[in-house]
Amino acid sequence: MSERGKEPRARSRCPISRTLELVGDRWTLVILRDLFIGKKRYGEFLDSPERITTNILANRLDLIERAGLATRRAYQHRPARYEYELTEKGRDMFPVLYEMSRWANKHYPETFTPPDSFTKAGMKASGARAKRA
Amino acid sequence: MSERGKEPRARSRCPISRTLELVGDRWTLVILRDLFIGKKRYGEFLDSPERITTNILANRLDLIERAGLATRRAYQHRPARYEYELTEKGRDMFPVLYEMSRWANKHYPETFTPPDSFTKAGMKASGARAKRA
Repeated sequence: MSERGKEPRARSRCPISRTLELVGDRWTLVILRDLFIGKKRYGEFLDSPERITTNILANRLDLIERAGLATRRAYQHRPARYEYELTEKGRDMFPVLYEMSRWANKHYPETFTPPDSFTKAGMKASGARAKRA
Repeated sequence: MSERGKEPRARSRCPISRTLELVGDRWTLVILRDLFIGKKRYGEFLDSPERITTNILANRLDLIERAGLATRRAYQHRPARYEYELTEKGRDMFPVLYEMSRWANKHYPETFTPPDSFTKAGMKASGARAKRA
């Protein structure tokens, strides 16, 4: 139970703490957001307005893949280039992104409201939320 | 619009990014969880199983207060000791914690399921979610 392959031992059995051990940083969920809106490639993530740096992006994509939130496949060889796609585990994170959006929309009026297409696609993709929709 | 007092300029107008700029780290939402379960004092936060260090705790409590997620009041002077209490803005974060719990409970079976009392109290406290309950 305490050993999870390459993952370090969890801080506790609290599910909130466990989630934060994986995605508790300023960038991982921004990349997941990009995957939800259909971005797949390195250059597409770099183009987002938050201006992630190449070293942080490479680090977080590696983390995302190792955590099983997305898979990658090479779409080009020599040099290798990869496309990323959300797994079910990654898609199940949508309700977290959705509630973060709702929270910021309420408390930071300068934030934009995600388009219905984002919300509908995310809800549909997320098995966790689909049951309630 | 771009100036928010002491806060740095936002990375973008994306509400997910905005939320992560405030609580995108491994500890802030763990402290919010503790506030939701009724913890108020420094020593209570230190006692949690995740074993936060004193310097990170002091840093995050300061951040939480400056972000308006909780207020503090002195319950003792010389030396000053403070109690923290969630604001409406902090309580509105409950749905994010709730969805993180659901996600980890699904994908990490070793995590515990929060007691109904936690969920009910949080739902009730959160104006954002109460409308849907």
